[in-house]
Amino acid sequence: MTRQRHFVKRPVRLCLLQGRMCLVRKTGKQRWDGCAMVVRIFASPTDYTLDASRFSKDDVLIGVDYGAYYALKSGIDLDLVLGDFDSTSSEETTFVKAHARVIKNFSTEKDSTDSALAVKEALRYDADEIIIYGGIGNRFDHSFANMMLLKLGPITCVTDSAEMFMLDPGIYDLHNDFPYISFFAIEPVKRLSLRGFKFDLEAYDLDVDDPLCISNQGAGRVQFDRGLLLVIKSQD
Amino acid sequence: MTRQRHFVKRPVRLCLLQGRMCLVRKTGKQRWDGCAMVVRIFASPTDYTLDASRFSKDDVLIGVDYGAYYALKSGIDLDLVLGDFDSTSSEETTFVKAHARVIKNFSTEKDSTDSALAVKEALRYDADEIIIYGGIGNRFDHSFANMMLLKLGPITCVTDSAEMFMLDPGIYDLHNDFPYISFFAIEPVKRLSLRGFKFDLEAYDLDVDDPLCISNQGAGRVQFDRGLLLVIKSQD
Repeated sequence: MTRQRHFVKRPVRLCLLQGRMCLVRKTGKQRWDGCAMVVRIFASPTDYTLDASRFSKDDVLIGVDYGAYYALKSGIDLDLVLGDFDSTSSEETTFVKAHARVIKNFSTEKDSTDSALAVKEALRYDADEIIIYGGIGNRFDHSFANMMLLKLGPITCVTDSAEMFMLDPGIYDLHNDFPYISFFAIEPVKRLSLRGFKFDLEAYDLDVDDPLCISNQGAGRVQFDRGLLLVIKSQD
Repeated sequence: MTRQRHFVKRPVRLCLLQGRMCLVRKTGKQRWDGCAMVVRIFASPTDYTLDASRFSKDDVLIGVDYGAYYALKSGIDLDLVLGDFDSTSSEETTFVKAHARVIKNFSTEKDSTDSALAVKEALRYDADEIIIYGGIGNRFDHSFANMMLLKLGPITCVTDSAEMFMLDPGIYDLHNDFPYISFFAIEPVKRLSLRGFKFDLEAYDLDVDDPLCISNQGAGRVQFDRGLLLVIKSQD
């Protein structure tokens, strides 16, 4: 599979798109025309607050399985619903089918996860930002699989208790309203610098097995030359 | 850090050691003298049942932070307690200090996690098996860091709702009492075969981004030629 790292190709100012998460790319060409294409995916577990006032009318809204029911029940008008509906009751499935504009129904026996299928759909829009609400929590295997999806584009997993995304080499100013912010190398990270956080770091080579950068605190500037960096903000 | 994959070097029959998890290596020299060295680490979150009747008097028992309090309070006599005690109240810390044989107290500001320090201690015993009770759940960053620890030896994370371990190339018969069993390539897995499970597979190359083997069911034989395979059994 060809990896697309949109953070590098098309830097975006996520600070304007979502209140709590602010990511401003400081280097590279700023492509910012004031009209970002955002795809929002509502998944399980539904431990996230649905604040439709933050959504733009141009956003593409996709519901996945029980997440679709949760969003539709909350009055959010979904552009697309997909899933195998193994997490909804028959009444909930009926409700979803009655209220969704478009449904793509998949078999429970498939070669992918519902979240992966939703991200595949989202990537077709060539979006500036893809937000997966949910996706972290409950079964670790699902959380882990969703984490791997973050490689595919400018994707952030968001719940009320955590946020998770990946960064390509560059310089970033990260805002953070969570008590903790952890960094892991998904591919070996070269010359990682953290400045402004509780625990700073200068030109450190972070290997994939190195837990050094777990449970940092605060916000600040992140810079590195090579590799792939996973960022997880979380509550205690 | 030198990676030690004890599953390859010293195959063990975990079925004799722990009721729910049974792993019998079918190839290679069977080193089985009837006296396995087991280290049990009690960590957070404490969503696991403590069944001391399964423990041998020769087991080494290590408590980590709140997990130490939980074990001691449950009447388990710990050989070693370690942690930074940022997850216990002052009363709980006092109780731990009054009941532990040996305590290693670490600063909250350290270059490792409590779990990693416990595994480092456990590896000093050259154990046949290391079981981390807890370690999965709550914060995803901690679960992810604990997952990476599984590379270091014959280590299994166990809770009441999940089990997680890694396998080196070989042939294994896996028992499974959980509804789901998922497989992920931590390093690209070559010629993976799954036989006897709900969804079987023959000589498949599983890449690190491939979610194909999530949410399998049942038990059976696992075989592969190269790579590193993460196995996660879980409830819904």
